[in-house]
Amino acid sequence: MYSQRRHYTLSASCPDRVGIVARVAGFIAEHDGWILESRYHSEDDNGHSRYFMRIDIKADSLPFHLAEFRERFRPIAEELRMSWKINDSAVKRRVVILVSRQEHCLYDLLARWQSKELDIEIPCIISNHDTFRGFVEWHGIPFHHVPVTADGKDAAFAEIRRIFEEVKGDTMVLARYMQIIPPEMCADYPGRILNIHHSFLPSFVGARPYHQAHRRGVKLIGATCHYATSQLDEGPIIEQDVIRIDHSDSVDDMVRYGKDIEKTVLARALRYHLEDRVLAHGNKTVVFR
Amino acid sequence: MYSQRRHYTLSASCPDRVGIVARVAGFIAEHDGWILESRYHSEDDNGHSRYFMRIDIKADSLPFHLAEFRERFRPIAEELRMSWKINDSAVKRRVVILVSRQEHCLYDLLARWQSKELDIEIPCIISNHDTFRGFVEWHGIPFHHVPVTADGKDAAFAEIRRIFEEVKGDTMVLARYMQIIPPEMCADYPGRILNIHHSFLPSFVGARPYHQAHRRGVKLIGATCHYATSQLDEGPIIEQDVIRIDHSDSVDDMVRYGKDIEKTVLARALRYHLEDRVLAHGNKTVVFR
Amino acid sequence: MYSQRRHYTLSASCPDRVGIVARVAGFIAEHDGWILESRYHSEDDNGHSRYFMRIDIKADSLPFHLAEFRERFRPIAEELRMSWKINDSAVKRRVVILVSRQEHCLYDLLARWQSKELDIEIPCIISNHDTFRGFVEWHGIPFHHVPVTADGKDAAFAEIRRIFEEVKGDTMVLARYMQIIPPEMCADYPGRILNIHHSFLPSFVGARPYHQAHRRGVKLIGATCHYATSQLDEGPIIEQDVIRIDHSDSVDDMVRYGKDIEKTVLARALRYHLEDRVLAHGNKTVVFR
Amino acid sequence: MYSQRRHYTLSASCPDRVGIVARVAGFIAEHDGWILESRYHSEDDNGHSRYFMRIDIKADSLPFHLAEFRERFRPIAEELRMSWKINDSAVKRRVVILVSRQEHCLYDLLARWQSKELDIEIPCIISNHDTFRGFVEWHGIPFHHVPVTADGKDAAFAEIRRIFEEVKGDTMVLARYMQIIPPEMCADYPGRILNIHHSFLPSFVGARPYHQAHRRGVKLIGATCHYATSQLDEGPIIEQDVIRIDHSDSVDDMVRYGKDIEKTVLARALRYHLEDRVLAHGNKTVVFR
Repeated sequence: MYSQRRHYTLSASCPDRVGIVARVAGFIAEHDGWILESRYHSEDDNGHSRYFMRIDIKADSLPFHLAEFRERFRPIAEELRMSWKINDSAVKRRVVILVSRQEHCLYDLLARWQSKELDIEIPCIISNHDTFRGFVEWHGIPFHHVPVTADGKDAAFAEIRRIFEEVKGDTMVLARYMQIIPPEMCADYPGRILNIHHSFLPSFVGARPYHQAHRRGVKLIGATCHYATSQLDEGPIIEQDVIRIDHSDSVDDMVRYGKDIEKTVLARALRYHLEDRVLAHGNKTVVFR
Repeated sequence: MYSQRRHYTLSASCPDRVGIVARVAGFIAEHDGWILESRYHSEDDNGHSRYFMRIDIKADSLPFHLAEFRERFRPIAEELRMSWKINDSAVKRRVVILVSRQEHCLYDLLARWQSKELDIEIPCIISNHDTFRGFVEWHGIPFHHVPVTADGKDAAFAEIRRIFEEVKGDTMVLARYMQIIPPEMCADYPGRILNIHHSFLPSFVGARPYHQAHRRGVKLIGATCHYATSQLDEGPIIEQDVIRIDHSDSVDDMVRYGKDIEKTVLARALRYHLEDRVLAHGNKTVVFR
Repeated sequence: MYSQRRHYTLSASCPDRVGIVARVAGFIAEHDGWILESRYHSEDDNGHSRYFMRIDIKADSLPFHLAEFRERFRPIAEELRMSWKINDSAVKRRVVILVSRQEHCLYDLLARWQSKELDIEIPCIISNHDTFRGFVEWHGIPFHHVPVTADGKDAAFAEIRRIFEEVKGDTMVLARYMQIIPPEMCADYPGRILNIHHSFLPSFVGARPYHQAHRRGVKLIGATCHYATSQLDEGPIIEQDVIRIDHSDSVDDMVRYGKDIEKTVLARALRYHLEDRVLAHGNKTVVFR
Repeated sequence: MYSQRRHYTLSASCPDRVGIVARVAGFIAEHDGWILESRYHSEDDNGHSRYFMRIDIKADSLPFHLAEFRERFRPIAEELRMSWKINDSAVKRRVVILVSRQEHCLYDLLARWQSKELDIEIPCIISNHDTFRGFVEWHGIPFHHVPVTADGKDAAFAEIRRIFEEVKGDTMVLARYMQIIPPEMCADYPGRILNIHHSFLPSFVGARPYHQAHRRGVKLIGATCHYATSQLDEGPIIEQDVIRIDHSDSVDDMVRYGKDIEKTVLARALRYHLEDRVLAHGNKTVVFR
């Protein structure tokens, strides 16, 4: 599904009406744009319907660059009352990772980064513990230890924001970061902070979900990657998965099994996000996999 | 995992201590009993531990029948402070099915019964609608239409109990039966009423779980088979499963996908139950699959 | 994903070039056609690339009916060198089911047909055994017993073809029909005969796949629905799925587990087929789920 | 399922007969041994049946250590004609990992080792490339670069064996090691070399399985962990899993998806192996998960 050729990705949504695809595809064709992949979806929106789309255009098929594309496309977007953006696959996203003391998501993301499966910049990694400094720095990535104390929470998150802004981060990934992001901070970066929660939401929100799951005696456990919003564990879900357990599995076993789905779900969701496959729609997502 | 040879199934639990397996297996060996399959499990029980077991013994390897087995085994069971039972695979269970107007679980169960995959007696099928009378009767199974009206609920459930007792039912299966069983009735048949709920519990308890799931934007939907207890949708879970959906699936699509897991989860759970693979432990289950 | 409003489904493929979507969507928009759902895919075809598409258009948004649509669209299709068809969701497909003595796929299909989940005509069911006559006829569907004997194979399949033609069948479903369809017959109905094979192809082609799987000691077993072609078990795969087993499962257990995925895989594949979601591409399929 | 308390694991198989469990559990009970977990299985063996078992005994419940256990248990084992071993959970296994240039299994195993989820010694890592030297050495693990050239294969594998013996390796893990282990070497270490193959065996044996899978148009791809034997890709399967793909996935996408199941399947299988949960039975395995 992913094109290795340089391409521009147009992702957009607008009120539904006749002729949207014709209008957009017509514009692209007019300029000889070669569509590599395109996806459309119409979603009910309180009785009206809203149209979502994602189009990959081969970069060198167009006679102009992104700036001019944006210029020329604007009137159409305005006419269709579109929310839209277009990105260039050659421009690497800047992803800042936050971790605590659990290793699985961090190792997994760095393995993918190292092999260029995840073709991003990681300008730095931030942690409330110093545990992974050596490991991160060995990869040539700056590491910031920002402790979060009971009465230093505000200062800590101010510092995290400062770093994120300073390194011009696009996206923040909470890779089993065991602190709650302040609601205002979530609100200031909508659709830009990804969290991995270790349960199949909406089951077992909050703390110690594997303990909750063990107590309830469920037969599958799960993980959920969602955008962080000001409502804890309530943000739009990007990806989820589950794994089978049984009565013989202790909480420790569940933690161990859970790690395998947490890291996979996070990596999948991050990839969808970075490729502009995720379009928010209220508290839900359209994911053009 | 299932033996086609006639066998006795001993299922039991007791406080954990040294020598339980030796004591029970020793008793069986003493009488030349051939163990076809055996499973043991120790579960933490508020700081103490409790031992669960399930043993299939080849029927004709023993020099006596069940009545005498029970007689001779009793002192051991008492010594070990056991809850126990032993059943004969040659004695068919008597399963009463309750349905409403949805066909999928009913067709599925009757297909399995018809081919003897489910080797049970179905002394009758009860419904609050007359929809499936012809279909059920064609299979040679008596059909009872017991309407449930707003002010005739008590009478209706009294009638259902009367029928269940009259036909000497062992197990009652709520195969998408769209009425809530009265708490007292659940309490009177503990571990004998199986319900299939169309969500991955504990998510989306109560009515219209697919609508709830659609609203929350989950990426997988599920089904749960549990014993009915006086707490709605809170009984011990026997089996669960999920299926992947995406943003393009409407509630109707989810209903359709959901049917496929509902019927499979119910059939698997019923099989575990009928083969004495499910041992209750408080509000949880040990399932020796 | 499935629209309940009456719609026309255009499915097509053509050599890839600039402007295909614009051309097709432009034509539809010109006539005020409302696109409910559309999917596009470009596939490498020995160095060239081939474009596949499937578009649902709201029937009453167009000012003309299918015949005129076909007339007007033809020049565009010719210009694009398209293979194409357009179908009306209000015209029920005519599906002939072939069975032998296994019940699971038959019960499953009839349950879906009965509840209109599968909104088709079943003009008749054909079997080489008389086993299911009563069950089928109870549903009001004609049943044909066409025995297949060692030296009467040709006559039997001639009779099957005669019936299929007589009832104007669109699609033939081999619902665990245990006879091999003659290669010429497969060749005469390309993309119209669906078979469910009880293994995860290409593993375990031919007879007794569960025995083969048991001997090899695999940890998952599967089922595959594919178009029947003149090469046995080699046709284009539409859908597959697997289920976990373990060392304790006998061949009989595998058969039992396998039934659950066979019927589900067949039902899913049939649905994709009937909704024109499956586009053949050589010996592979594009499936716009 | 895994006990964190120090325990001895007895794993064994023997010809089936009456009284095996009683004999073994009786011996353990006699010495006040506390059974934490036990599993039994009877498998048909060309008309005879063979009994497999795995028992975890709490170490400090026994009045003696392993050497004396072995001494005292030997007569029983001989009487039952048992193949058996008993291991101490406090003695860490020595696992040598072989890699080439793919990172995913290596990062995954080291993450698990680093967090003690995988509580083993890794005395060294061997590779035919120098790619991961820095990464491995950063973890404090010796790294050996043993190039394999067309005419230096024999020397290379002699060197690998020398290293494996020198570091007293128990188990060798081929973590996407892209060289074929010589048949004699496989034969000399039966049940001690784990390989991860990037297909759902027996489909797509040999080279470039994802290319084979893409050509065949399968809808799921898989990974298989098996013991390496002298027959390439034919050894006893320990664990398998699959992941769904569709027509839009290129070979590169399949490689990427495949990595996620390869590393998970390898990690699960290695865990089963290290906990003596895998008992070989001809070319199959009994896996007491």
